[in-house]
Amino acid sequence: MNAMPKLQPPSAETLLALTSIVGERYAVRDTEDMAPYLTEWRDRYRGKATLVLKPGSLDDVSRILKCANEARIGIVPQGGNTGLVGAQIPDESGTQIVLSLERLTGIRDMDLASNTMTVEAGLTLAGAQEEAARAGRLFPLSLASEGSCQIGGVLSTNAGGLAVLAYGNARDLALGLEVVLADGRVWNGLKALRKDNTGYDLKNIFIGAEGTLGVITAAVLRLFPPPVERVTCMAALADLEDAPALFTHIQGAAGPMLTAFEILPRIGIAFAVKHGNDLRDPFEAPHPWYVLFELSSPITGQNIRALAETQLQAALEAGQIKDAVVSQSAAQAAELWRLREIMSEVQKYEGGSIKHDVSVPIARVPEFIDKANSLVERMIPGARPVPFGHLGDGNIHYNVSQPADMEKEAFLSNWEALNAAVHDIVLDLGGSISAEHGIGRMKRDLLPGAKGEVAMNLMRSIKASFDPNGILNPGKLL
Amino acid sequence: MNAMPKLQPPSAETLLALTSIVGERYAVRDTEDMAPYLTEWRDRYRGKATLVLKPGSLDDVSRILKCANEARIGIVPQGGNTGLVGAQIPDESGTQIVLSLERLTGIRDMDLASNTMTVEAGLTLAGAQEEAARAGRLFPLSLASEGSCQIGGVLSTNAGGLAVLAYGNARDLALGLEVVLADGRVWNGLKALRKDNTGYDLKNIFIGAEGTLGVITAAVLRLFPPPVERVTCMAALADLEDAPALFTHIQGAAGPMLTAFEILPRIGIAFAVKHGNDLRDPFEAPHPWYVLFELSSPITGQNIRALAETQLQAALEAGQIKDAVVSQSAAQAAELWRLREIMSEVQKYEGGSIKHDVSVPIARVPEFIDKANSLVERMIPGARPVPFGHLGDGNIHYNVSQPADMEKEAFLSNWEALNAAVHDIVLDLGGSISAEHGIGRMKRDLLPGAKGEVAMNLMRSIKASFDPNGILNPGKLL
Repeated sequence: MNAMPKLQPPSAETLLALTSIVGERYAVRDTEDMAPYLTEWRDRYRGKATLVLKPGSLDDVSRILKCANEARIGIVPQGGNTGLVGAQIPDESGTQIVLSLERLTGIRDMDLASNTMTVEAGLTLAGAQEEAARAGRLFPLSLASEGSCQIGGVLSTNAGGLAVLAYGNARDLALGLEVVLADGRVWNGLKALRKDNTGYDLKNIFIGAEGTLGVITAAVLRLFPPPVERVTCMAALADLEDAPALFTHIQGAAGPMLTAFEILPRIGIAFAVKHGNDLRDPFEAPHPWYVLFELSSPITGQNIRALAETQLQAALEAGQIKDAVVSQSAAQAAELWRLREIMSEVQKYEGGSIKHDVSVPIARVPEFIDKANSLVERMIPGARPVPFGHLGDGNIHYNVSQPADMEKEAFLSNWEALNAAVHDIVLDLGGSISAEHGIGRMKRDLLPGAKGEVAMNLMRSIKASFDPNGILNPGKLL
Repeated sequence: MNAMPKLQPPSAETLLALTSIVGERYAVRDTEDMAPYLTEWRDRYRGKATLVLKPGSLDDVSRILKCANEARIGIVPQGGNTGLVGAQIPDESGTQIVLSLERLTGIRDMDLASNTMTVEAGLTLAGAQEEAARAGRLFPLSLASEGSCQIGGVLSTNAGGLAVLAYGNARDLALGLEVVLADGRVWNGLKALRKDNTGYDLKNIFIGAEGTLGVITAAVLRLFPPPVERVTCMAALADLEDAPALFTHIQGAAGPMLTAFEILPRIGIAFAVKHGNDLRDPFEAPHPWYVLFELSSPITGQNIRALAETQLQAALEAGQIKDAVVSQSAAQAAELWRLREIMSEVQKYEGGSIKHDVSVPIARVPEFIDKANSLVERMIPGARPVPFGHLGDGNIHYNVSQPADMEKEAFLSNWEALNAAVHDIVLDLGGSISAEHGIGRMKRDLLPGAKGEVAMNLMRSIKASFDPNGILNPGKLL
């Protein structure tokens, strides 16, 4: 069923043809120059490639794919190389070619009345944010890797991040796409429309497809009025069970002004305070759980600080929370957010960590964490769960730090078995085994179990009709 | 390329098998009983059918499609039969079978903490709104046909309506689907998740596919906190050119509280006042254009009336508007909205009307209307354009009433030629020839010209792999 046509190593003649499309300068063959494109920052995936091609135009991309398709050469599209599941790294065969979009950084259009901008795939996310800000607008997608990750990659992985609660995933922030298909044909779907009911939704097929169905070269992005008031709050909870109700309560009171809602466990705060530079616990006493949330508004006079204080006071009186702080300055807000942002990083100082990027319906987050924690204690006694993340989206980064007295390698040898058992709980609760990072190489073998045969068949049939020779990002996702 | 396998009229044996799946009572064969399923309310499309089947369960739907697929019988899925492009009506051959989802009306789940509800396809939109309201939530999709249209149809056509500006299209309001495929297999994609990056986006392929790729049997819908404050405003403009800037201005001031923004022409108000029962012009003097907008908020204390008044005062002083009214009661708000809602209906009293459901980028709406009006005057001198609609989404219902002194039939004979010429302008401005009504039978022949060969090829390949025998809604969309 999944049998794809055989791919070939490129012949000398094909390499010459591909090189001549972009010119010698942008066809990288030197081992050292290729190195940054063949491994990722955690050094978890390493690949080999015949060539790294850096096209300078849509036409270059089209000619490269046409040539590669005819010669049956595997093409690995790459953005900022910040993906966490290995989708952007070639395999070890040394027969694939990396297609870096980094030179396509143009702003093709800025339409303030329509609140859209059309940008090329190689623009960094931070670059897109800055371009929007210069025009007095907000492009709300926000990720840890925003300085390096690129719009094409962000769309190909349907990136999420901190602002999904208010603004949606990458998918929700793109109105149109330009995509080069496997055989070099160009689909121009660069519509800047909120409403367009003319046939099947091609845009959303390419978004999140991890470069396996086509190469995104440009996109029309949605812009928003920027926030002019913002306040960050942190509350301490006796019990995680109280978090979903608190979320409902704050959302009911703040409506669309609630723009982020995260949870953090005690152990995470302890790690952050112990290992983070100058970070301190905002509360006098320790508490089992914390929520960190943000209210913001694009219009003035909303008095969101008073709103936050009133709601937190009511939650305190109702016993829903035990303590609370409200940021009094941008610096204080940044300090609170640092506790959240450093969560993954500080785990490194506590030895090995086994990670999961999962989601469940919001109401079931406490049940999920409870069940997963029991499982961890049964499977690896003494291991220390550090679950945190976007409660407002039901997206939990269920990370588990090793027992203090265990060998790192021995602990990490449980990775796959623990993943499998945690994912079983997630699926049982109607959740997803990859909330925002995608499938890539890392979760490819887990996909059939998570999706079931019907969905896998549909996906395989889409792949077969969009990329019949299987040249696009071979061995990823499906 | 588009050659689909030959479909068959059902044999007596197959009819018996299909009837036995739902039982005699729900297999309608009587001509009179079938009639309501074979024509639509404007009587624009009339079809014939061998049978109208009314399955009572997911399993029924699955068995019907399996049987029809094996026997190569065309199946026309039907919801509330309110579609405007003929997608829900069988052809004239009398060999097709209508599959009505009307008996699948269950509420499968209501999850207030996650703000989702899972409902079956045959529930009416009004039923879904009421169910949400009973739980203290808002299901924001709102259409003229909401009393009759059903969730399955609403999703299959990606319905839009009045609340798209704030809440998005039907597509944006569904988190998951359950779909029966052409061969009877069931895809269970009923996830209630904001974040789920596990492979291709199957959900969005079925949404807006007009029943040509599968039959939606249930959906997980998003719920929102209901508005507690609401104010409706109408402003008079000297020039439509001022409307996009006014929209940007109000959106900048009201942020997410701006939940609708419509435009109406002078002639539309004149028609409404002339033909509408008890409707009156809210302004003393006539004006060339009007905007009708709504501010609403799910939280109290927002003082949106003062906000509206301040902004309208500023727009008056800046000369952006000539006059304005702000609703002082729910009754007054309803009266203003009646002027908008009656717009299509009152045209009937002025003779024939040629209609277009199009969208362009917001900034280009005035240019579009200007060009289209000149075109109309060239093609049919004396014809009276009545363009109105959702400026906030760039979606204009470009309706044209006949010249007062022309024969209705003579005027209507221009329908296709005028459509073609207006659509050329729309496409030239980067717009869509079907903003919210879909393609169905009405615009099927226009689709290739609007989408181009690459998009058509991709859509045909999806159709061929999802429904290889072409039994699902044959002759619609593609």
